[in-house]
Amino acid sequence: MTQASIDVIAIGNAIVDVMAPASDDDIARLGLAKGGMTLVDTDRARELYDAMGPAREISGGSAANTLAGLAALGAKCAFIGQVAQDQLGEVFAHDIRAGGIAFATPARADEPPTARCLIFVTPDGQRTMNTFLGASQFLPAIAVDEAAIASASVLYLEGYLWDPEEPRLAMRRAIAAARGAGRKVAFTLSDAFVIARHGDDFRALIAAGDIDILFANEHELAALTGLDDFHEGIAALAPKVPTLVVTRSEAGAHAVSGGEHAQVPAEPVARVIDTTGAGDLFAAGFLFGHVRGMALETCLRLGAICAAEVISHYGARPEADLKALVTGI
Amino acid sequence: MTQASIDVIAIGNAIVDVMAPASDDDIARLGLAKGGMTLVDTDRARELYDAMGPAREISGGSAANTLAGLAALGAKCAFIGQVAQDQLGEVFAHDIRAGGIAFATPARADEPPTARCLIFVTPDGQRTMNTFLGASQFLPAIAVDEAAIASASVLYLEGYLWDPEEPRLAMRRAIAAARGAGRKVAFTLSDAFVIARHGDDFRALIAAGDIDILFANEHELAALTGLDDFHEGIAALAPKVPTLVVTRSEAGAHAVSGGEHAQVPAEPVARVIDTTGAGDLFAAGFLFGHVRGMALETCLRLGAICAAEVISHYGARPEADLKALVTGI
Repeated sequence: MTQASIDVIAIGNAIVDVMAPASDDDIARLGLAKGGMTLVDTDRARELYDAMGPAREISGGSAANTLAGLAALGAKCAFIGQVAQDQLGEVFAHDIRAGGIAFATPARADEPPTARCLIFVTPDGQRTMNTFLGASQFLPAIAVDEAAIASASVLYLEGYLWDPEEPRLAMRRAIAAARGAGRKVAFTLSDAFVIARHGDDFRALIAAGDIDILFANEHELAALTGLDDFHEGIAALAPKVPTLVVTRSEAGAHAVSGGEHAQVPAEPVARVIDTTGAGDLFAAGFLFGHVRGMALETCLRLGAICAAEVISHYGARPEADLKALVTGI
Repeated sequence: MTQASIDVIAIGNAIVDVMAPASDDDIARLGLAKGGMTLVDTDRARELYDAMGPAREISGGSAANTLAGLAALGAKCAFIGQVAQDQLGEVFAHDIRAGGIAFATPARADEPPTARCLIFVTPDGQRTMNTFLGASQFLPAIAVDEAAIASASVLYLEGYLWDPEEPRLAMRRAIAAARGAGRKVAFTLSDAFVIARHGDDFRALIAAGDIDILFANEHELAALTGLDDFHEGIAALAPKVPTLVVTRSEAGAHAVSGGEHAQVPAEPVARVIDTTGAGDLFAAGFLFGHVRGMALETCLRLGAICAAEVISHYGARPEADLKALVTGI
């Protein structure tokens, strides 16, 4: 196996977040599932956008956010994802490349437009996401650059993208390429609803030994294992993956790797503004430590620091100098 | 003259701001005029966007920002401006309508795309603006709804839009409609470069008695009067307009109306993040007080409070509850 020239290559939704403050009354009135992610069609997206207050647009996408954090920490990254040939596609491509991340997937000429996620942020900082997948769901398997995947230490995959068929096939192809090249595969479960639909697929991937690093929050852990108790869930899942990382919001995070357990408290935050991207940036910090060969607890601490940065402002991409924040860790 | 049913109707650039942090080195390397506004063509816009860091998109446009502030304070407002039929046009239209502002100008079907302003924000909070006018410069005179203008207490015009020919004609038509209906005309000089090109027009409008409320910063005052001394400039210009409002950044603001002078210090700000929109929101606060018949000094204080809010975060549209901020003033 040759030396990797890329730290992390990721496949994910290429999406622009459209974010606005909202009240709990708005959430109830619009029939939204607070704190969750719901897929919406064109009509529902239009209805929700019309009901939304003045917004701001910031590039998002779970795996893309993770790469933005990794690149800000100094990792070499590449992204694979599908935008359309439109202004939001240009925004997404600009932002990811401006973050120093290689992005070569050609924009798609046809309808639908580039994906967007309408995010209602309540005063408690909780985000309620409504995703119009648009072009993102048509990422073709041909977009998977197998040579690039073979040259990356870690292939990182976003569970959200398991839902549409074409990207799922693309990700299966990518997993095969990574395993064939002896590289690691990291996977984030993304949301309990994805597990409800595709839990069998995920359990099969784990059973086949295709996932080296698995990211979940405590709700996803419960959904995947069928065990409501956190420690029972960890005990059931940890023996099946080389590295398991479970985040618990303000209760911190827990990791198990090769039988070793580590845990960290959440990093203190003066004021939680918007939790969008918290898990994504936790994964960024953890993976950075992992590819640099740091100790398990250090990886968790890096994750906690990056997550704390991203929830202290609007948007799921880091704003502060992450390198400076983790200096001396 | 019938009772006005709209407080303020404005004509301005319909523009989306694309904002990113930048260093002073970036400003120098890219040959930008720090703190100023420069018009850019498609090629230069592309070059600057490629050189820009990861950005966020927030609706802008000077007069539109002022209306956003006015509407947030509780004023009834309408906007006239030209977007294209594209995603950024939808973003602009959504944001202004979501702010409670009437906006009926039809989107333009042809090229060029909706206007955008590439804004580099340096660590001192100063913004350096590079405007691609796009569709905005093709606002036709036919878009001026004379009945709406006749029904508004104040017609507010943005000097930036005096540059392209079609909107200039549209604004002249709007001024005639407002004066014919016995309404007030407010005008912001926008930038010294506009005065360099169109100072004769502005002086002629003032001489003809077509401007009732004139907004300027101290640099624009100097450019318009040819007098570098602030007090000499005020003394020369004040007798020519019923109300003159001059802002001086951290040195506060000064107004003269019907021979009465008033001044206020700048409102303290914990940390200046981004000065984009400071003048626009000052105008919002002042005009709100004016249409509500408040004392001159109170109008200035409202302006200072609104300006302080907008420079304490990224973007030129208010985020905090302006109504609450000015309660008890």
